[in-house]
Amino acid sequence: MNVEGSNVLIEANAAMNGGDGPQSYSQNSFFQKTGLEAVKEILQKEIRDKFDVVKPSPSESLTVKIADFGCSTGPNTFHAVQIILEAIQHNLQSETLDSQGPEFQVFFNDLVTNDFNTLFASLPPKRQYYAAAVPGSFYDVVLPKSSLHFAYSAFSLNWLSKLPLEIMDENSPAWNEGMILYSSKRKDVLRAYAVQFADDFESFLCARKQELVSGGLVSVLVSGVPIGTSFSETSTGKLYEIFGSCFVDIANKGLIHKDKVDSFNLPAYYPSPTEIKAVVEKNGDFSIEKMEILPNPAFRTKVPDLKKRATSFRAVYEGILSKHFGSEFVDKLFKLFCKKLDNETELALFLNSEKKNLALLFVLLKLKPSPH
Amino acid sequence: MNVEGSNVLIEANAAMNGGDGPQSYSQNSFFQKTGLEAVKEILQKEIRDKFDVVKPSPSESLTVKIADFGCSTGPNTFHAVQIILEAIQHNLQSETLDSQGPEFQVFFNDLVTNDFNTLFASLPPKRQYYAAAVPGSFYDVVLPKSSLHFAYSAFSLNWLSKLPLEIMDENSPAWNEGMILYSSKRKDVLRAYAVQFADDFESFLCARKQELVSGGLVSVLVSGVPIGTSFSETSTGKLYEIFGSCFVDIANKGLIHKDKVDSFNLPAYYPSPTEIKAVVEKNGDFSIEKMEILPNPAFRTKVPDLKKRATSFRAVYEGILSKHFGSEFVDKLFKLFCKKLDNETELALFLNSEKKNLALLFVLLKLKPSPH
Repeated sequence: MNVEGSNVLIEANAAMNGGDGPQSYSQNSFFQKTGLEAVKEILQKEIRDKFDVVKPSPSESLTVKIADFGCSTGPNTFHAVQIILEAIQHNLQSETLDSQGPEFQVFFNDLVTNDFNTLFASLPPKRQYYAAAVPGSFYDVVLPKSSLHFAYSAFSLNWLSKLPLEIMDENSPAWNEGMILYSSKRKDVLRAYAVQFADDFESFLCARKQELVSGGLVSVLVSGVPIGTSFSETSTGKLYEIFGSCFVDIANKGLIHKDKVDSFNLPAYYPSPTEIKAVVEKNGDFSIEKMEILPNPAFRTKVPDLKKRATSFRAVYEGILSKHFGSEFVDKLFKLFCKKLDNETELALFLNSEKKNLALLFVLLKLKPSPH
Repeated sequence: MNVEGSNVLIEANAAMNGGDGPQSYSQNSFFQKTGLEAVKEILQKEIRDKFDVVKPSPSESLTVKIADFGCSTGPNTFHAVQIILEAIQHNLQSETLDSQGPEFQVFFNDLVTNDFNTLFASLPPKRQYYAAAVPGSFYDVVLPKSSLHFAYSAFSLNWLSKLPLEIMDENSPAWNEGMILYSSKRKDVLRAYAVQFADDFESFLCARKQELVSGGLVSVLVSGVPIGTSFSETSTGKLYEIFGSCFVDIANKGLIHKDKVDSFNLPAYYPSPTEIKAVVEKNGDFSIEKMEILPNPAFRTKVPDLKKRATSFRAVYEGILSKHFGSEFVDKLFKLFCKKLDNETELALFLNSEKKNLALLFVLLKLKPSPH
């Protein structure tokens, strides 16, 4: 389950847990890692086939520019970049007889609050590229016009740029009282989240269109719901329900006010393949070169470790939780969450069944040539 | 006195004090700021006159790339970048009638241990450029070939990439026993430092040659000795002597071993204009477009605040001092340094006289066209 694996947070106010301590993102991003491994071969093959850089004049040197949007603190971003770089090298070698290959420059992007110091400290020492960090929301343009050859984003689009306003409005039918995420039972809430996702993904595509060279590629990997399934039916949906019930329990004990829970929602969304496709087609600037729906191998573990999942939730959510509830609450919350998970032997088996798990949605897009 | 104003440390193992607390670099870089202000007009004028970007074809958009080598944590780097950017805009406007100006991308470079999180947190929100951080020593190539239009470096070249080995070798005539920096009295030590500076500056020029486009500019600002003066004669030299005597005093009290002091040296150097010129000419790839020797207005303060200078030393040197001596020693050291400075009314006046102060050395270089 790599739903915890998103790298961008609501309204640029928080980021993954920094550093490399026991609750850091860098030590708790195993689910994201398996997700990358699952798509590795497809990604490689697609790049080898589809990467198509317009070479400058023979006298000019080529610098291939790659960006990871929502890179967090590593180490997954370094693995991804290496896979992409080698595939591009392979692609270019087969086309040219140049003894000297191109140079590579990699832009690591995440919110300005991301722990870039930790990212830099763990940069591979023998890398084949010039590294640069680019701070800012990837829902905006963060690189110069027509400068990028390959855009990569893994699990970052699972995070919305902001929460839909109506879910926090008690006069709206979409008010999400007593819950921290959407569920299939509340259609209006679900719709509000879905609209926000579509808007955000559209913003992502518009920004990448500006930055990419003609023919440039975008590789997107997200956690999503398989066709014919709703989020609430998935094991991840059920895990979030348990997580959400902890908030309500703590409020019921009078330790925090109910309003605090009502006004808190997670900016996460798990789209279906249909939704992804609809946004790309409506946008119109990109062709879908490849779309794959894969099981996430992280679910295949023999002994599902629910506590590890709780730690993984913490690595991702601690920032926004502390901001809204204070850090004392966060300790209580995860204590209770772990306790509840201890009794969830049924859920553990369910999480392991692979039937009702979130899928990996992989899509490779190519920027269409500009009409003039 | 902006001798404390260097942004790169010995052997990439330490950097300026991070964060924005009372002993941080970002709160203690006033001397560097006045240095920038002193050369602002020259810098502007030179860029307006000499910036000469080869424009791409009319259909292609131009992205002007600027890098600050040794940017530290801000805010001085942002002021410098703004000055450079506006001057380039002015230069390009006078040449083209394009309604749409070029885009700018700025690369903030410093050692991988630099506090880039603090740098990003203080980025001007309404900037006219895409910001990127580039980690790594600027004595190496850190950007792709022929990709850079303007290289800037302020007070960073006052820091050597490493210490000359012989000054730590007790069998060498250049052994710097009981001292922490070179002085005119020890010719062999001075020579070893001078050779290291020349080597480092040469490495800097070689790296920039790779990165710059043909006709690209390099602006270097360093603290240096005025013509006809030796470092030991300057107020800064005398301040370092007092600083150095604190180490010896603490060793004499038996609180640290004498060997600890003998094996410690600061990787700082203050070149003369002649030395700068000699390295550029020997290198041969750059033409000297402008060279200026200016007084640093930081010395013009009516009431010289020696304690402020001590804090400024700390912001710069705490990293390497803690590494070598431990943090307890650092507290003792600066306590003693401040105490000694309290009795230095004569030095205070001397520091203020402007006669024997370090100068600002400004040089603008242009990469010569490649012979083929």
